[in-house]
Amino acid sequence: MRSPILRLAGRIPTNRQDLILPGERLDDLGRDGLYIIQDPNTFCFGTDAVLLSSFVRAAEGERVLDFCTGNGIIPILLSSKTRARNIKGLEIQKSLVAMANRSLLYNSLENRVEILQGDVKKAGEIFPGEKFDVITANPPYMPKSKGIENESPAVRIARHEELLDFSALAESATKLIKEKGRFYLVHRPLRLVEILTELRRVGLEPKKMQLVHPFIHKPPNLVLIEAIKGAAPELRTLPPLAVYDSPGVYTPEALSIYGQDF
Amino acid sequence: MRSPILRLAGRIPTNRQDLILPGERLDDLGRDGLYIIQDPNTFCFGTDAVLLSSFVRAAEGERVLDFCTGNGIIPILLSSKTRARNIKGLEIQKSLVAMANRSLLYNSLENRVEILQGDVKKAGEIFPGEKFDVITANPPYMPKSKGIENESPAVRIARHEELLDFSALAESATKLIKEKGRFYLVHRPLRLVEILTELRRVGLEPKKMQLVHPFIHKPPNLVLIEAIKGAAPELRTLPPLAVYDSPGVYTPEALSIYGQDF
Repeated sequence: MRSPILRLAGRIPTNRQDLILPGERLDDLGRDGLYIIQDPNTFCFGTDAVLLSSFVRAAEGERVLDFCTGNGIIPILLSSKTRARNIKGLEIQKSLVAMANRSLLYNSLENRVEILQGDVKKAGEIFPGEKFDVITANPPYMPKSKGIENESPAVRIARHEELLDFSALAESATKLIKEKGRFYLVHRPLRLVEILTELRRVGLEPKKMQLVHPFIHKPPNLVLIEAIKGAAPELRTLPPLAVYDSPGVYTPEALSIYGQDF
Repeated sequence: MRSPILRLAGRIPTNRQDLILPGERLDDLGRDGLYIIQDPNTFCFGTDAVLLSSFVRAAEGERVLDFCTGNGIIPILLSSKTRARNIKGLEIQKSLVAMANRSLLYNSLENRVEILQGDVKKAGEIFPGEKFDVITANPPYMPKSKGIENESPAVRIARHEELLDFSALAESATKLIKEKGRFYLVHRPLRLVEILTELRRVGLEPKKMQLVHPFIHKPPNLVLIEAIKGAAPELRTLPPLAVYDSPGVYTPEALSIYGQDF
């Protein structure tokens, strides 16, 4: 899903121009003067990342880690949408880690956000002894064997469970989350049974869920989940979130999530 | 939840009058001339039973069993909403079984619907060697230890998991459902994680889900689920079902479920 808020930046400060490589583009996030570097041939963030970043709660002193961070979109949005000052991202693809780090420099976020290269399955070794208050994830949605295999390996890794399935993701998350810490996830409702089952299995109890519908009377195409480590059962389902009122016309809820500036 | 379609019947055929005992009342179901006998002190059906009966698919030749059938509301509604000719109900409370059977006589449904007395946990012994195409359940919603304990034991048994918890219900259902047969359930969204986890555990894969909202922009208070025995994973979530457009004004979807006649 491509985000509707993408927009080519108009003016680029000359001294930061060299952070953008050939084939890449700079997109204005429409919030706090933030920009992001993207490569249309490998990875561009989507509506799902924007929705997840608005669903996350993180207080100023909390430590936040984003799994499968891609070009760093979620850490960058969280720097605007929360007051958290210690935000990390983990991404397996080296070219995306490099691109994310150039976006951090572009936004002068390098002291608040850190993007590391590594495999989520080995997150316990990458952050030895560390515990996080909040972990977020916008993981590959499609099972390894399902859906149309895209030709580009970079896109395939981001969309399909080539390198990371949901069980492994949940296991890595619970290892690194503090007791009563929170896990935030965006995924496909088609996989809801597996998601809820696996989260409970690893001790991350699903506590809050919101379904996202393109239009209010259509089936949902995304689900947002907050799970709390070691919490008692009981899932609170929020009102449905609709993106469009009519074709091309956003709902007030979607507008407030995307930001005023679009 | 009390159903909005309850209504005292105007005229009662004289020869059936003696089916209604003192303290009971006769309610018009607003469909196909069907009535139901209820006792406001023990058990009256609610919106949930009406919604579940509309969610169920059952073909003419299929065998249908309703667990926790109460006063028989779901079998009686299914006789109108489906073409199934072989419908059974199982209820543990003897007084409700007797009341349900009097409703069958009142509606001349005694050749199509049969209500038996017994414990859902022992359903395998009650129906030895039998398999059903469809099992339905509107079970107690509240865990044994939770919520306000009502003074009447009959109401307590219907609302709280005094005699039957969800694991035991799911286990009994899977024992009696044919391979690829269907289980239909209405329950509280608060218990969704447990419901989906337990259904998958017993081999009843949740395949279809609809959340029911009092108003479209409010959190859901009911969830409808179709699970298929031995099916592959993938849950289809339907568009949200809202009951009211504004206070006292039903949505077109709710009107079509409740029937034209109210």
